[in-house]
Amino acid sequence: MSGKLYGLGLGPGDPELLTLKAHRILTQAPVIAYPAPDTGPSFARQIASSYLSGNQIEVPIVVPMRVERFPAQDIYDAAALTLSRHLDAGSDVAVLCEGDPFFYGSFMYLFERLAGRYETEIVPGVSSMMAAAAALGRPLAARNDVLSVVPGPLDDADISARIDAAGAVAIIKVGRHFARIRALIDTMGLTSAAGYVERVSLPEQRIMPLADVKESSAPYFSMILIYKGSEGWASGPASGARNGSAS
Amino acid sequence: MSGKLYGLGLGPGDPELLTLKAHRILTQAPVIAYPAPDTGPSFARQIASSYLSGNQIEVPIVVPMRVERFPAQDIYDAAALTLSRHLDAGSDVAVLCEGDPFFYGSFMYLFERLAGRYETEIVPGVSSMMAAAAALGRPLAARNDVLSVVPGPLDDADISARIDAAGAVAIIKVGRHFARIRALIDTMGLTSAAGYVERVSLPEQRIMPLADVKESSAPYFSMILIYKGSEGWASGPASGARNGSAS
Repeated sequence: MSGKLYGLGLGPGDPELLTLKAHRILTQAPVIAYPAPDTGPSFARQIASSYLSGNQIEVPIVVPMRVERFPAQDIYDAAALTLSRHLDAGSDVAVLCEGDPFFYGSFMYLFERLAGRYETEIVPGVSSMMAAAAALGRPLAARNDVLSVVPGPLDDADISARIDAAGAVAIIKVGRHFARIRALIDTMGLTSAAGYVERVSLPEQRIMPLADVKESSAPYFSMILIYKGSEGWASGPASGARNGSAS
Repeated sequence: MSGKLYGLGLGPGDPELLTLKAHRILTQAPVIAYPAPDTGPSFARQIASSYLSGNQIEVPIVVPMRVERFPAQDIYDAAALTLSRHLDAGSDVAVLCEGDPFFYGSFMYLFERLAGRYETEIVPGVSSMMAAAAALGRPLAARNDVLSVVPGPLDDADISARIDAAGAVAIIKVGRHFARIRALIDTMGLTSAAGYVERVSLPEQRIMPLADVKESSAPYFSMILIYKGSEGWASGPASGARNGSAS
């Protein structure tokens, strides 16, 4: 009998933001797999690390940072083959996913290769977007607001149109697009409605009004939230709350 | 010294989808508060019920179902006053929230009344939207897709425009708007790309392609996901996966 494949959402970074379910499966699965950069540690594995027994088989899936230059399909084909051998041998396999597996996650590439052949379960996780709103102390969206999630790599006209049309906006994958996106938000007169969150829920988390960001670039794990909602959080991010620490 | 106020995301319904952090705070807080309808049980309390010791002070916040007919501001003013007495007495207060507190949640009404006066922490939760994508076995959004979250009460023209403009759409608060929204999606030729999820993650969960829904109405806790993404999940929701059960 084949093993079961899990796509395991681990949440945004704080190990305590794993769900009870993800924790149970993580600690019971004989095989765990996770995306890893070609140099440096795997963020997904770091989130899970304090819960690992050391007796589990680990399968890093090495995805080069500049993946567009590499044959990524080959990487996932090879990873799926490796995981299928464990599944065929009857071992459950848990694929560790930062945030939520199906919210802009790379788990889909394994899912589309394996889910038709093996029992598969996705365990949803807390997304960085929800955690960012929590950290900023502002609603992500409320009442009948339309919330648009907009990837930073889109071009200026596209991003502007999305911001214009929605009551609430989360700009993800900001990274090297930060300066351009900030200028765009400024041109639209919305800087005072925008909050910035970096490495949310981790000890090195930074949260501030967008206007207060000094740097002209941002790390990959950063996000800008804009809330234009009728509830009038006009005083800027986090100003209304005496927020607790990230832990 | 005053107590601390928590907005505690409990996830979409399965008690195992609480985070470890929410579980810790829930079991330690001397006072818990939760929204409750004027008749019947509180869904938030039901999610948490197996973890309650019986020794906690419980504060139901009764919000009539047809809240638009009632002075809701008065309800939250009164609830904030009650909670402030516990906080002033030095007790931590955990407000239980279905899903994520700041994702269309009513916690914001307490937050705006209390967060300026008391230390406040939001614990993000798994949203029903992420859980619905997991249950359907389809990505919510991927790569550079724009994801729009669209409340069902919006009018036809507005909903159509949002669906047209986005690569991925989650229509929330479907409820009594179901028949109208389904007709709209059908007119747009997108029924085959749409999945329906009801009471996600609960034992009574129902998931199916939108085309297979026989009823002409839907419960409040239902959602329609449309995925037009380039990855081509054209074969319809969940068809590619041998999904596990909701538990």
